[in-house]
Amino acid sequence: MTIQTAIDALATLLGDGLTRSKSDLDLHGRSESHFLDCPPDAVAYPVDTAQVAAIVQNCADHACPLIAWGTGTSLEGHSLAVNGGVVVDLSRMNRLLAVNAADMDCVVEPGLTRVALNTALRHTGLFFPVDPGADASLGGMASTRASGTTAVRYGTMRDNVMALEVVLADGRIIRTGSRARKSSAGYDLTGLFVGAEGTLGIITELTLRLRGQPMAVAAAICAFPDVESAVAAVTATIQMGVAVARIELLDTASVAAVNAHSGMSFAVQPHLLLEFHGSDAGVEEDAATFGEIAADHGGTGFARATQTEDRNRLWKMRHDAYYAILASKPGHRAIVTDVCVPVSRLAEAVAETQDDIAASSITGPILGHVGDGNFHAILLIDPASAADRTAAEGLSHRMALRALRLGGTCTGEHGVGMGKLGYMAQEHGTAWDVMGSLKAALDPAGIMNPGKVVRG
Amino acid sequence: MTIQTAIDALATLLGDGLTRSKSDLDLHGRSESHFLDCPPDAVAYPVDTAQVAAIVQNCADHACPLIAWGTGTSLEGHSLAVNGGVVVDLSRMNRLLAVNAADMDCVVEPGLTRVALNTALRHTGLFFPVDPGADASLGGMASTRASGTTAVRYGTMRDNVMALEVVLADGRIIRTGSRARKSSAGYDLTGLFVGAEGTLGIITELTLRLRGQPMAVAAAICAFPDVESAVAAVTATIQMGVAVARIELLDTASVAAVNAHSGMSFAVQPHLLLEFHGSDAGVEEDAATFGEIAADHGGTGFARATQTEDRNRLWKMRHDAYYAILASKPGHRAIVTDVCVPVSRLAEAVAETQDDIAASSITGPILGHVGDGNFHAILLIDPASAADRTAAEGLSHRMALRALRLGGTCTGEHGVGMGKLGYMAQEHGTAWDVMGSLKAALDPAGIMNPGKVVRG
Repeated sequence: MTIQTAIDALATLLGDGLTRSKSDLDLHGRSESHFLDCPPDAVAYPVDTAQVAAIVQNCADHACPLIAWGTGTSLEGHSLAVNGGVVVDLSRMNRLLAVNAADMDCVVEPGLTRVALNTALRHTGLFFPVDPGADASLGGMASTRASGTTAVRYGTMRDNVMALEVVLADGRIIRTGSRARKSSAGYDLTGLFVGAEGTLGIITELTLRLRGQPMAVAAAICAFPDVESAVAAVTATIQMGVAVARIELLDTASVAAVNAHSGMSFAVQPHLLLEFHGSDAGVEEDAATFGEIAADHGGTGFARATQTEDRNRLWKMRHDAYYAILASKPGHRAIVTDVCVPVSRLAEAVAETQDDIAASSITGPILGHVGDGNFHAILLIDPASAADRTAAEGLSHRMALRALRLGGTCTGEHGVGMGKLGYMAQEHGTAWDVMGSLKAALDPAGIMNPGKVVRG
Repeated sequence: MTIQTAIDALATLLGDGLTRSKSDLDLHGRSESHFLDCPPDAVAYPVDTAQVAAIVQNCADHACPLIAWGTGTSLEGHSLAVNGGVVVDLSRMNRLLAVNAADMDCVVEPGLTRVALNTALRHTGLFFPVDPGADASLGGMASTRASGTTAVRYGTMRDNVMALEVVLADGRIIRTGSRARKSSAGYDLTGLFVGAEGTLGIITELTLRLRGQPMAVAAAICAFPDVESAVAAVTATIQMGVAVARIELLDTASVAAVNAHSGMSFAVQPHLLLEFHGSDAGVEEDAATFGEIAADHGGTGFARATQTEDRNRLWKMRHDAYYAILASKPGHRAIVTDVCVPVSRLAEAVAETQDDIAASSITGPILGHVGDGNFHAILLIDPASAADRTAAEGLSHRMALRALRLGGTCTGEHGVGMGKLGYMAQEHGTAWDVMGSLKAALDPAGIMNPGKVVRG
């Protein structure tokens, strides 16, 4: 009963900051996706780094697994307590510690969410650009190397985390990096912990790069005869150096779902949705350039949205597309896939996936961050139907293998968690063994989020 | 004689590809900076990854140190064979293996230099943006996490290397990453090897991110009454979202040296040199916006350069500033320093450094990539004068400590090598121990570039 011993000690240490109530265990034993529930043995709510370090030290003494928790919005079962143990819920560490406007950076606790951060930043003229859709915690976004619609312009969490404070598996506290914009002073530990999914340590503080709110923003939408034409327009646009801040694809099935759900009347064809950030003249020119490129590729119904209200409606429609797709089959749940390929192979990847879905019993509209070659099929299943689940899992499996065959990755932005563990050996070969060696070096007892990312 | 045994075996393996000639050992035992010469026992010239792996395996069998070598232009003694052993000169692995124009990436061998790459890319409309000044090899640039004048816009090598092939210390060959634009499939091994200075493995292939050649380029120059005003103009420019591709500071002493060397007649005041990349309208607007910001901060003599020839002259002047400074004291050599601080502390860091230099016996003009908070003092010493060397080393030491005190890093872009090893414990604390653990995990025998980056 080493876990029990650890939890007894934690109860003394944390008082009210530790709970074993069934509701709390159930809440922290669920994921937003299709994995089976897996409740932890206790949930700890630390309020500062010292408490996190004390929790980790205590658990290390008793070989008790530790799972860091942000908002629970990850999609690959990252935070499920597959070996039991303690979930460390960081929601009480949610302060914005500093905004350094002159340096365009800020320092936050891991439980702060991205929407809360941007709300707090509104008066500064700065913003944090990474937008994965969900209002995730910034610690969780760093841990899964999240990205989303704006990565084509502003990069992923890899590009926007400058430094971290991390509690290691033995309770030591380290700082990776400084507020300097660049450094070549040794190994990039910040980069190592971003995307490590809590398997190497628990992030307790983040220094984040901020951006100036653009002087002007414009959005546009355009229909295309097929996915190939839309992707060709994307490639041409990026190669021209047009400063797209977002460039999103909705396939025909997604557009149909959006029309039905939001009372829109878009042509039932693949669409690109774009946003441009820059100066007044710059966004005008960029939108006009895209308009010409779109026309060259058979684009029709090109429309601009410069008013904030029109723009917001467009992006609300995009962000709601997931719910529109869910609503298209009442009572169904979604298995959300996530692959990324070189943009030159994107049209092929989407077409093969569409054919595979069409040949199955499953509905699966496709949408994606096509500037990066990243797309998702939203596979709808009747939760009571084993046949549906099997069919969807087969489609998802073939998508991952297809992405690898086309020179891509089995997960563009959702992470490995439990869902993509089975593809790591194939994607990385010997490099996956190297990841295992790094894990063993930093967490020899394997207590940090066991069962994720590396070989078990 | 384990090194000797290794070299005998390598001679059999490589034939002409191994040399022990005095001239070759001497050439590979020098650095471009002030460190004492340190020749290796042999130099190997592999022609492909399989040969690199065979060399490494052989050296691993005999515990023989291995030092990867690009062009030898690093500045902190990275490639000196402090424990003897074999230099692996990658200059024969200098092929451009693939250009994927639609994906805006390319695949290169490590010995290809950045100028050779850009020459080969000229007809594609694409370019590789990282410009550290020297025509370094791309493998070397990755290994030192190089950056330079364009990092403010395009990032450092960290941001522009998508994937690597690496030979590990036991001869295993791994691939880190794919050609997908983003991935969250596990630990960021690419980021770990970029900046590792050959201490974790030898890079044998790089996949690099390319950019579209901008439609329009404009340059500008402006004098300022003091460094504080210049830096304030930099901060305002970046916060306004002006798309500067370069923003460089030359202090008064640097401008005086440039005037004398290049027959220029710039006002003997601090100057900013800028470059803007974008659309025709965009660069016009950006340059005009900068002109207004400069005027608000006491800038005078603002001048544009839109013609390629004028622009090239301006940047040649900037790139030649180092030689202009050297020429200002015939017979002297330079100790080049390299620190990076948050931009909000830059004016303070430069002013304190200028005061320290003024109080010494040394001449030391300052120039820097101020958009990133990174600057260099070029400390001129009489190579025969022990007093000069002592004074310069004292100034360099105090610069590093000052950067750390101001929240920065002891090396912005030159790397650790031997020169910055003494600051690693202070800069990173326990995180330096973590770097040591990673090194021990991947190179337990310590044969990869020993004496660099981590605790010896």
